[in-house]
Amino acid sequence: MISVLSGGVGAARLLSALSRVLEPSEITAIVNVGDDLVLHGLTICPDLDTISYTLAGLNNDEAGWGLRGESWRVMDELSELGGAAWFRLGDRDLATHLYRSQRISEGATKSDVTRELCQRWGVQVRLLPVTNDTVATEFDTPLGRLSFQQYFVEHHHDVVVSGIEVVGADTAHAAPDVLETLRECSRIVIAPSNPLISIDPILQVPGVREVLARRRDDVVAVSPIISGAALKGPADRLLAELGHDVSCVGVADYYEGLIGTFIIDQADADLRDVISARGVKVEVTTTVMADPDDALRLARVVLA
Amino acid sequence: MISVLSGGVGAARLLSALSRVLEPSEITAIVNVGDDLVLHGLTICPDLDTISYTLAGLNNDEAGWGLRGESWRVMDELSELGGAAWFRLGDRDLATHLYRSQRISEGATKSDVTRELCQRWGVQVRLLPVTNDTVATEFDTPLGRLSFQQYFVEHHHDVVVSGIEVVGADTAHAAPDVLETLRECSRIVIAPSNPLISIDPILQVPGVREVLARRRDDVVAVSPIISGAALKGPADRLLAELGHDVSCVGVADYYEGLIGTFIIDQADADLRDVISARGVKVEVTTTVMADPDDALRLARVVLA
Repeated sequence: MISVLSGGVGAARLLSALSRVLEPSEITAIVNVGDDLVLHGLTICPDLDTISYTLAGLNNDEAGWGLRGESWRVMDELSELGGAAWFRLGDRDLATHLYRSQRISEGATKSDVTRELCQRWGVQVRLLPVTNDTVATEFDTPLGRLSFQQYFVEHHHDVVVSGIEVVGADTAHAAPDVLETLRECSRIVIAPSNPLISIDPILQVPGVREVLARRRDDVVAVSPIISGAALKGPADRLLAELGHDVSCVGVADYYEGLIGTFIIDQADADLRDVISARGVKVEVTTTVMADPDDALRLARVVLA
Repeated sequence: MISVLSGGVGAARLLSALSRVLEPSEITAIVNVGDDLVLHGLTICPDLDTISYTLAGLNNDEAGWGLRGESWRVMDELSELGGAAWFRLGDRDLATHLYRSQRISEGATKSDVTRELCQRWGVQVRLLPVTNDTVATEFDTPLGRLSFQQYFVEHHHDVVVSGIEVVGADTAHAAPDVLETLRECSRIVIAPSNPLISIDPILQVPGVREVLARRRDDVVAVSPIISGAALKGPADRLLAELGHDVSCVGVADYYEGLIGTFIIDQADADLRDVISARGVKVEVTTTVMADPDDALRLARVVLA
């Protein structure tokens, strides 16, 4: 049994590869909910959805986001009405949010809904939202305080960030099975997701960071930074703006005290010794999951 | 200036006809919200939507409900997910509900949203929800207490009703302009909507019944019952189950003390004297709005 702390796309790809090496039912993804939002009355969980869509084989590989065979009738009509259409929700995707919102209004938790949807889609990897309480990652910027999706989607993460706060994290409760699973699994993997806005909101839920610190020898992280740049998203820019080194060394330092092994890309092989000197084992491989074979190779290193 | 107490389809047709005789901007519809619901996190206002869609020319005349050129992608996907798909929401229609739900979450009222949507659609008749507070028409049945849409849609109004309660009506506040308009208009029309579940929830909002009672000489109602039967919906059955006479006389009695003029169908001409004996003026015409000419004729009688 392994656990994987997971953001969106990068984690989804790693989980997909891991489930070709292990029995999927032996993998638990503990998923960020800091970028969840309520929009148009609908509860939307972007990271949970990205992962479950990917594992169900429903994701749109070409676009890199969203669902295969998606259509946009509702959004087109909403634009006509002058509604808030900056957050694009396809018709298929909307069905997921309608389902979740109705179940939550009936008293179900995000954990319950995630389990129900995964069962429907035949997803055997176990997905757990890190918490069923409301936590919201917010950004201090020259435009004021921005919600996650305002920052990420509306402003295309093209605005200077001077601070990040995961509102509600300090009083949130880990969802059922999260801490138990982290305590009892054989290995904890930190996916190559954004350390500041995908992984940190997981670590901030009381109990999670403590388990990792206690089990650091069993914790393996994959660097999301290669040659000083993020493959996707604003991880590099945020590291710089918030005073971290923009390299895999910066990420290793960010996870100081929490990881026993750090996996970096071949392009960063020359930084191996710098990181080893921190008392962290370093593995060097191809971390870019450009095709299924690369992903599989990375999965094998993660599990080695 | 005239006001029209309005339910859904019957009211929409009458309003449409009235706006061919009067300037549309001289007509205010005061609309039932007792069958509004929150489903899938979305705030849905069936009567407001039926009327605005009809006046905007967006309604699906053939189906008798919903929007022209509607598609069902989201509902089909929701059914696949095992979601609650008994309340059919088309893709175009969903855009309306997403728009409304988002605006309400931003602090707008149903009045605000209705005005915005009508402006977008070029609807010049003024639509006012009778209240912006939550009121919910509920039914006592052998299956227990049912919400409006459980009764109407899920059970196809095919269940015995022993009582109706408009929950929240007694403490609701009339929406802005509702009581002012009722006081100052030249004529108040009660549309041929269901007296018990479309009109009564309007009358129960504090202040409304009182204005009608005071202005009864200016109040004109159109009977929704012809030859002892409702053209559409369960008005006849509900009148019987709740101890009223299933005829236009029963409706006139239901509106006792509130109306000065009652318009009945030619088929019921023999009941003219029975109703006149109650001190109510009676007009006899074709009340079935089977085609636009019939509707226009009825509109002229209403305004005579």
